[in-house]
Amino acid sequence: MSLVRVHNFSVSLDGFGVGEGQQLDAPFGHAGHRLMQWAFPTRTFTQMGFHGEGPGDTGVDEAFASRWATDIGVEIMGRNKFGPQRGADEQWRGWWGDDPPFHTPVIVLTHHPRPTLQMDGGTSFHFVDAAPAEALERARELAEGKDVRIGGGTTTIREFLAADLIDEMHIVVVPILLGRGEWLWDDLEGLDERFHIEPVSSPSGVVHLTFSRR
Amino acid sequence: MSLVRVHNFSVSLDGFGVGEGQQLDAPFGHAGHRLMQWAFPTRTFTQMGFHGEGPGDTGVDEAFASRWATDIGVEIMGRNKFGPQRGADEQWRGWWGDDPPFHTPVIVLTHHPRPTLQMDGGTSFHFVDAAPAEALERARELAEGKDVRIGGGTTTIREFLAADLIDEMHIVVVPILLGRGEWLWDDLEGLDERFHIEPVSSPSGVVHLTFSRR
Repeated sequence: MSLVRVHNFSVSLDGFGVGEGQQLDAPFGHAGHRLMQWAFPTRTFTQMGFHGEGPGDTGVDEAFASRWATDIGVEIMGRNKFGPQRGADEQWRGWWGDDPPFHTPVIVLTHHPRPTLQMDGGTSFHFVDAAPAEALERARELAEGKDVRIGGGTTTIREFLAADLIDEMHIVVVPILLGRGEWLWDDLEGLDERFHIEPVSSPSGVVHLTFSRR
Repeated sequence: MSLVRVHNFSVSLDGFGVGEGQQLDAPFGHAGHRLMQWAFPTRTFTQMGFHGEGPGDTGVDEAFASRWATDIGVEIMGRNKFGPQRGADEQWRGWWGDDPPFHTPVIVLTHHPRPTLQMDGGTSFHFVDAAPAEALERARELAEGKDVRIGGGTTTIREFLAADLIDEMHIVVVPILLGRGEWLWDDLEGLDERFHIEPVSSPSGVVHLTFSRR
């Protein structure tokens, strides 16, 4: 069976995966770019166009960052990761331009389904109104035997954790305090009984946490 | 001026410094001993009698744990760290027996002052009904020029942080999810603007966070 994985999902020290006030020019709300700053210098993110022209760093941050696409056949993301709109909007084509970095089918969880969007580079957005287990079933059909990445945001990851559908998870703790936003750890008492949790600190100042099923 | 320091204060991954349901046989509530487990094998805690007869470990956990008493002239602790009772109680002499491990004066913040308790080994408990700044003034009188340790619990540390009275802080993040209890990070947005925060992961599985004033 293919695995369900989370990669590179960043939270503040106080556990917020996104700040308050998400909008078109602020996908992370008042958090700004601070939650993803650790990733921009890595080779993986440099090659996605986030950080100038160099070859990109290859340290521990890259070791973790680079795993996000390997053996992945599909991503599932929440409505708020796809865009800042609430309600129906058939014009919005995502934050990522004509050639999004996913290069696989992407399931967007939404209460407002719309026709599938075929983008350049192999990415397609499929709009699905379904609970986690049903969405995962649809994702596996699209993944052609490969793994499924849960791409976030915070609420989506928490819902898949609550339904016990996640096999491995990489969370990055960034040493800032956001104070408000969407809290990843809400109501997850005892999660450490299901997962072995290993923290590794990086010279960049973040902590990589890997959750592996016990 | 003497420094105000926090040492060895442990929280769960979701930020709780104590669980729910503190009582006589459960000082940390439903957290049990899990928040302090990392410390018991260290030389410092072994010498305090927490862990059998060996000499105790001397790795990174000990490097941090051992700093707690150096140059400390007084501790300030909250009422809940001193005991499980609420309201007045003149019989309770703390969790630590006749010879508590502090060996300095200790200020216990409480709305129910009582006469000073002189214990063995140099520890004395002084019961003070005061806001953080005033308690700190009293502590400095007792410290004879040495540093002041804020010993917890969660609420006490948060109140001293909110009043911007803490100079350095060592927090230990333990990879468990408690789900409920007293949350250390409540309403501390922007704390990283006042402190440089450095995380170091330990082979024991915890992360040591040091907060140094910028």
